[in-house]
Amino acid sequence: MASGYDLKCPIAWTLDIIGERWTILILRDLLRSGPCRFQDFQRAFPGLSPNTLSARLKTLEDHGVVARRFYEEHPPRAEYSLTEKGRALGPVLKALLEWGQAHAKPEKARG
Amino acid sequence: MASGYDLKCPIAWTLDIIGERWTILILRDLLRSGPCRFQDFQRAFPGLSPNTLSARLKTLEDHGVVARRFYEEHPPRAEYSLTEKGRALGPVLKALLEWGQAHAKPEKARG
Repeated sequence: MASGYDLKCPIAWTLDIIGERWTILILRDLLRSGPCRFQDFQRAFPGLSPNTLSARLKTLEDHGVVARRFYEEHPPRAEYSLTEKGRALGPVLKALLEWGQAHAKPEKARG
Repeated sequence: MASGYDLKCPIAWTLDIIGERWTILILRDLLRSGPCRFQDFQRAFPGLSPNTLSARLKTLEDHGVVARRFYEEHPPRAEYSLTEKGRALGPVLKALLEWGQAHAKPEKARG
């Protein structure tokens, strides 16, 4: 992977797979909602371009975090779901969520 | 923050602060080693440019995750350390570390 950190550190190895912009939010939707189609992600993230979304899903698929399955339809469509390795990222997402709730609420979101 | 996700989601709020490239590795060193100077980060991350390092430290300081302190020397130098809010990121780093150890070891690092 061209943009990898190339460091001898498990944190860096993890970030080489899930550290790019948007990837963790894609994983969040898969963890929360189960299998998603390409269009589901596009609807959830208006700021994410189709090219970037394709690239992120491909990286996750290449690393065995996400599985892609085609199902019968006209035209046939792909559905993305987490593998067991992907579901094992739950604690990462939980820790990010809890810190955000406690420490990162933006000014404009405070009630 | 120009590059923020602008989503109503605590995970996205966290990533708006710590989600940029290199930031989590900077936090790793501060958690592991305690206070660091600018040169310590440069030594640890040869691929990280001084401009990017400055920008990352400034974002962390602006969000109260890192504190900067000047100490007496000729010339005076800055030292960076985690605030309480920064230390609260420990579980995020731990989860990334554990997933990396279990699932992300690169081929070339396997024994």
